[in-house]
Amino acid sequence: MTEPVQPAAPIDFYFDFSSPYGYFAAEKIDALAARHGRTVLWHPFLLGVTFKVTGLAPLPTIPLKGAYSLHDIERSARYFGLPFRQPSVFPIPTQHAARAFLWLNDRNPARAKAFGLAAYRAYFVDDVNISDLGAVLELASAQGVDRDELSAVLAGTEIKARLAAEVELGLSRGVFGSPFVFVDGEAFWGADRLPQLERWLAEGGF
Amino acid sequence: MTEPVQPAAPIDFYFDFSSPYGYFAAEKIDALAARHGRTVLWHPFLLGVTFKVTGLAPLPTIPLKGAYSLHDIERSARYFGLPFRQPSVFPIPTQHAARAFLWLNDRNPARAKAFGLAAYRAYFVDDVNISDLGAVLELASAQGVDRDELSAVLAGTEIKARLAAEVELGLSRGVFGSPFVFVDGEAFWGADRLPQLERWLAEGGF
Repeated sequence: MTEPVQPAAPIDFYFDFSSPYGYFAAEKIDALAARHGRTVLWHPFLLGVTFKVTGLAPLPTIPLKGAYSLHDIERSARYFGLPFRQPSVFPIPTQHAARAFLWLNDRNPARAKAFGLAAYRAYFVDDVNISDLGAVLELASAQGVDRDELSAVLAGTEIKARLAAEVELGLSRGVFGSPFVFVDGEAFWGADRLPQLERWLAEGGF
Repeated sequence: MTEPVQPAAPIDFYFDFSSPYGYFAAEKIDALAARHGRTVLWHPFLLGVTFKVTGLAPLPTIPLKGAYSLHDIERSARYFGLPFRQPSVFPIPTQHAARAFLWLNDRNPARAKAFGLAAYRAYFVDDVNISDLGAVLELASAQGVDRDELSAVLAGTEIKARLAAEVELGLSRGVFGSPFVFVDGEAFWGADRLPQLERWLAEGGF
């Protein structure tokens, strides 16, 4: 008897909706994975929780590094060929968007990804402040989600516990930044690690 | 009358001898620059001074990020096709090596680069602790430097002031990490920005 061929495991993709490098990766990760026969599980994440563990701080608040990073983000967008406009409020709390994503993802992952990309583009291209609950409901509504139903869900405690558990799980796996990707247990942090990630997939490690 | 053609300005390359990503860049930067008709000015730098300004800390000391980074450094070495062995003492103070480099560089930049690469390889391949003055003198001696002369130089106050001024100048230009490169005023931080740096040189910006 021969062993049945197992399909390759999905890639895990962690992101915070306030992370521009997370936005760049979100635009690229599914096509990259598909080139190597993989699918991607998206995991919304809250960087603010990791800052308490690592002692790190949001990029714009760090002397020297903050100013460089704002410049690097704009240049990296051009490098990746992606539209980008620095949001007028940055960074922002992203709980509402992350919870909406999770709830959608449990029902329809494809729709959740469409919502996720729409939320990223709203924030990083159209300067929509997606920390606002109304903006999140509007974006979900545009993806065919029942606005009243999602509004009730986001007001409840269940989805809050769900996101907290998701973030806790990420932390326990070592996630401390965005984007953060796992391929068969191998961790890759940062949009600038996409080339290493792609080589890893192509060669089965290196 | 036509204007004489001006040669393209050299690239400025800042590095700390304790930085593995600085080592990777040191191995690549001159050939990269040469592909686009540029030369490289090497500037030894002390990350410890920037940590006081940025509030950042050495990578290995940061929860979660430290463990990831040690793994990322080894994988990045393989990605760049460079030999690497994690030094048993890391990070280290690099004043002696930086001062020796500066003194050499003021006299013979090519010999200084050869010393710089030898020091990086000693530390990151052969596990030689180059924070040790004797190790620095040995490495310089192997490059044809008079050991007694360099020993006297490194014991003096002049070279200390020279390195302090070099680091201060770097800070005033915004240098906060290693490697850090300037091309015609455009800043690139990290070995992972070499592809952006190369595109910038190829296209004259993007």
